[in-house]
Amino acid sequence: MPNRTVFFISDGTGITAETFGNAVLAQFEAQFRHVRLPFVDNAEKAHQAVRQIRHTAEIEGKRPIVFTTLVNEEVRAIIGGACSDSPQSMMLDMFGAFVHPLEQELGLTSNHRIGRFSDISKSQAYNDRIEAINYSLEHDDGQSNNNLSSADVILVGVSRSGKTPTSLYLAMQYGLKVGNYPLIPEDFDRQQLPPALTPLKKKLFGLTIDPTRLAQIRNERRPNSKYASLENCRYEVSAAEAMMRRTGIRWLSTTTKSIEEIATTILQEIKPERLAY
Amino acid sequence: MPNRTVFFISDGTGITAETFGNAVLAQFEAQFRHVRLPFVDNAEKAHQAVRQIRHTAEIEGKRPIVFTTLVNEEVRAIIGGACSDSPQSMMLDMFGAFVHPLEQELGLTSNHRIGRFSDISKSQAYNDRIEAINYSLEHDDGQSNNNLSSADVILVGVSRSGKTPTSLYLAMQYGLKVGNYPLIPEDFDRQQLPPALTPLKKKLFGLTIDPTRLAQIRNERRPNSKYASLENCRYEVSAAEAMMRRTGIRWLSTTTKSIEEIATTILQEIKPERLAY
Repeated sequence: MPNRTVFFISDGTGITAETFGNAVLAQFEAQFRHVRLPFVDNAEKAHQAVRQIRHTAEIEGKRPIVFTTLVNEEVRAIIGGACSDSPQSMMLDMFGAFVHPLEQELGLTSNHRIGRFSDISKSQAYNDRIEAINYSLEHDDGQSNNNLSSADVILVGVSRSGKTPTSLYLAMQYGLKVGNYPLIPEDFDRQQLPPALTPLKKKLFGLTIDPTRLAQIRNERRPNSKYASLENCRYEVSAAEAMMRRTGIRWLSTTTKSIEEIATTILQEIKPERLAY
Repeated sequence: MPNRTVFFISDGTGITAETFGNAVLAQFEAQFRHVRLPFVDNAEKAHQAVRQIRHTAEIEGKRPIVFTTLVNEEVRAIIGGACSDSPQSMMLDMFGAFVHPLEQELGLTSNHRIGRFSDISKSQAYNDRIEAINYSLEHDDGQSNNNLSSADVILVGVSRSGKTPTSLYLAMQYGLKVGNYPLIPEDFDRQQLPPALTPLKKKLFGLTIDPTRLAQIRNERRPNSKYASLENCRYEVSAAEAMMRRTGIRWLSTTTKSIEEIATTILQEIKPERLAY
């Protein structure tokens, strides 16, 4: 049973509130019930949110925790006021804590722009991001060598080593054009990288994985196949690692890493120009 | 020219620090130079970060802004101490501001677990998320009707209305299995939904788009084609909207919305069980 109810309230999507709130809550060994209240951008919706928070406080008999990223001062005042009245809630005002000190530091007033994700659908940065997602889909799994040289990063590795989710994450979060290319038995026989990749070595990054874990993942897809056998997985992984070592490609093992950790490490190593990392 | 340099320092990936920092900085009409310092998880790396911050402060003659999500107390003390010495920096200690008040509120001490993304690669939630990404790729653009009934959400709309990026975002961020299905001229002629979708109406959500914007997007792909012509785009959009209205599917226009806003709105409407929204 959850120990406490947590509200994420924003006048935008609430994604920032929830991302940051989750990081803070991960510091506690407790179960939280999440309630997301996005697009709370006027007094009426603020009062509706207050009713919901108070109702929760009353039936649970514990102060709800309320993470807010609110730019609208009226909405913030309504929710802030209600949290300090009985039945109380604990308001963690994420912009309040940092925006006001930054106004002083920068000598600027904040623009009260709601939602950093809004109104950007026609911006160049946004269009570039959509293009990066499309590029990464079209260059998934070595599907196309078209415009491969305009990739920011090209991932290589054996089938099911984590290339596709990592490519899509880099495209989605950072607007990077990411190709990914499987290393297959033919490459190991020739003991060379796929020919299309040879001139692009600076952009290459290798992913490898523990053979036992790989066999497990492949068995979920194709049970009892040669493809999924531990013996074959061991062979492919060791051949791929030997090739990456020989050609001087940077690489990491994805076995115990999340997509976010893999992506962060790749960015540190490759430092794509587009990011001015 | 950027007004100020901003550091994002974390003992994990730094993704939370940057997500939240960007949301705060978006409140100011100023240009910031971003420096990401992830995986700062020991004293040596902390001292290295301090050298970099001090160097920036000296050559720029302005206090750098330092967003931190640091769990390691030693690292936090080294960076915090250095920021208040000359040359000064402005440290915005994101966990410090909220974790300590929460410890009091919950009557728990925080577990100092570094990186909410780490060590999760074998967790059920993480595996589900990877499976959701694979599912969404396999069910992109009506490619497969296999297991369509196990989708959490199925997006429908004309080609290039935003279905693919939205599907992948929902899979990546929320671990949802999302199919997407194009509405094509044959469907408009029959004036019916694609047959595979009829029994799944509760999971359907429609995306539409302004025809002028659609023509612009399609022209980048296939210049001067009938597919991209304004006349054809007008026809497809009006036929698709008529069909969604007639069949009672919930829908929105993606024209001025970001992926994040579209995704948030869909979640509010569909409330997938998996999320306990």
